Amino acid sequence: MKLTILGCYAATPRTITNPTSQVLEIRNHMFLIDCGEGTQVQLRKNKLKFSKINHIFISHLHGDHFYGLVGLISTFMLLNRKTDLHVYAPKGIKEIVLLQLRYSNSFTGYNLYFHELTSKESEVVYEDEKVLVKTIPLKHRIYTNGFLFEEKIGDRKLNIDEVHKYNIETCYFQKIKNGKDITLDDGTVVPNSEITFDPIQPKSYAFCSDTMYDETIIPIIANCDVLYHETTFLESEAEKAKSTMHCTAKEAATIAQKATVKQLLLGHYSTRYATINLFQQEAETIFPNVLLADDGRVFEF
Amino acid sequence: MKLTILGCYAATPRTITNPTSQVLEIRNHMFLIDCGEGTQVQLRKNKLKFSKINHIFISHLHGDHFYGLVGLISTFMLLNRKTDLHVYAPKGIKEIVLLQLRYSNSFTGYNLYFHELTSKESEVVYEDEKVLVKTIPLKHRIYTNGFLFEEKIGDRKLNIDEVHKYNIETCYFQKIKNGKDITLDDGTVVPNSEITFDPIQPKSYAFCSDTMYDETIIPIIANCDVLYHETTFLESEAEKAKSTMHCTAKEAATIAQKATVKQLLLGHYSTRYATINLFQQEAETIFPNVLLADDGRVFEF
Repeated sequence: MKLTILGCYAATPRTITNPTSQVLEIRNHMFLIDCGEGTQVQLRKNKLKFSKINHIFISHLHGDHFYGLVGLISTFMLLNRKTDLHVYAPKGIKEIVLLQLRYSNSFTGYNLYFHELTSKESEVVYEDEKVLVKTIPLKHRIYTNGFLFEEKIGDRKLNIDEVHKYNIETCYFQKIKNGKDITLDDGTVVPNSEITFDPIQPKSYAFCSDTMYDETIIPIIANCDVLYHETTFLESEAEKAKSTMHCTAKEAATIAQKATVKQLLLGHYSTRYATINLFQQEAETIFPNVLLADDGRVFEF
Repeated sequence: MKLTILGCYAATPRTITNPTSQVLEIRNHMFLIDCGEGTQVQLRKNKLKFSKINHIFISHLHGDHFYGLVGLISTFMLLNRKTDLHVYAPKGIKEIVLLQLRYSNSFTGYNLYFHELTSKESEVVYEDEKVLVKTIPLKHRIYTNGFLFEEKIGDRKLNIDEVHKYNIETCYFQKIKNGKDITLDDGTVVPNSEITFDPIQPKSYAFCSDTMYDETIIPIIANCDVLYHETTFLESEAEKAKSTMHCTAKEAATIAQKATVKQLLLGHYSTRYATINLFQQEAETIFPNVLLADDGRVFEF
């Protein structure tokens, strides 16, 4: 599970900070999460392969989380993309994007699917044999969702030395990976545990931005490996956090602690603070494993 | 007259090139012309004072000319702007911007005026005592206008040494600047030419992008000081230029020559060419005074 932070600052883009966008690479997928203005340039700067993005998840329709989307969609058009593109975002996104394409008399040469979200309950928005994505309803000034990305338990891994020792043919491999024992021609039963290793432990990543402090998300994100949680402010600006429906670092850490997540990744910083280390210091008074997102930073979990 | 090129490349933003946007500073105005994605960051990089922009001119509704507008409007909102903002753009811009503000539940704390353009004839869209702006109807794949910015002839300049010699009081100064002679208390008439200098010669700037080769613009831009004309392609790609309704450098130079402009400024380059000098070389075979726009370049005319 590899996470590239394209932007993690609140509000508008600046010369050295970018609005929210990140890429989660997980089991051969490249998921784009939020798409503030300038995301396509950030993708290029971070040498991420545009064409591998097939699914885009947008938390909410504040500009710093989606103003780069229509540009990215247009660029895919110019690059002659043919692969389907899926956008998961609050209701309204389709109208916004299509209106702009219509006025520019442009048509995508690829299928563009909008999955508009309206539910206030957590729901599965994407699922295949390897990964499941569900929404995390958040409380912000407008309708907002976080997203929980969960790997599924994969196949057992072949212990190839043991498999060769028994001269087992390739056609049985998938059966073995699925956990089945093997009966040899002489009737000997080889137990699965002898010829396989345990599958890789599935990982999970929860993206929660923007949101006020809200304990109702805890059952959804409980025990996840990495929680990205917004912390626009420090406790010194707790009133401001409350009135704008954002969080302080302490509040983000409290959610991490109560949800017993393994690691907390902070982001969505207001640019008013001299250093983002202040967020880490404040969060660590509550929860020990705190990481700081920053533009261009890459995390491997 | 000072022109800052924020971006002058065709199509989508890249790590080192930006889509169209430029700032024209003329007689105390700061006019923004086009506003591709990333314009607000380019404004910051070029240390231009955001708050002085009160008039934004958008040529057409292709993304590389306006996708940065809604972000800029939102940033003005966050910066607590109070001054009126005027946007001159093809019909549709109001619907596009307001739709996005509506979904984000945002309201500008300043008055936002949309002057939607639909005329296929040149028309005056802005005028005050110092400057006049008129449209230059262009031929492109969708409805497009260039813009002609004309300084008006200013007041005559006071020759302050002569004025003091005659002990003329301050209250007469505006009258003198307007070209009037002065009668002294003893009945002597001081001719205006003796106490003033000629006013500064008014300058004019024509912005023409995007457009195919089109001689019908010549009467509108004739004899202007600086013509910014698009040249997406070179003559080697003349067919491509024609089919996409763009121009080659040779065509841009031909327009400059036929309109007897003083200087030709090239821009809106396709990124397929190794160096933009090729555009200058090709244009100079037709017209002598060719300048190259490039991101971050500043021109004083």
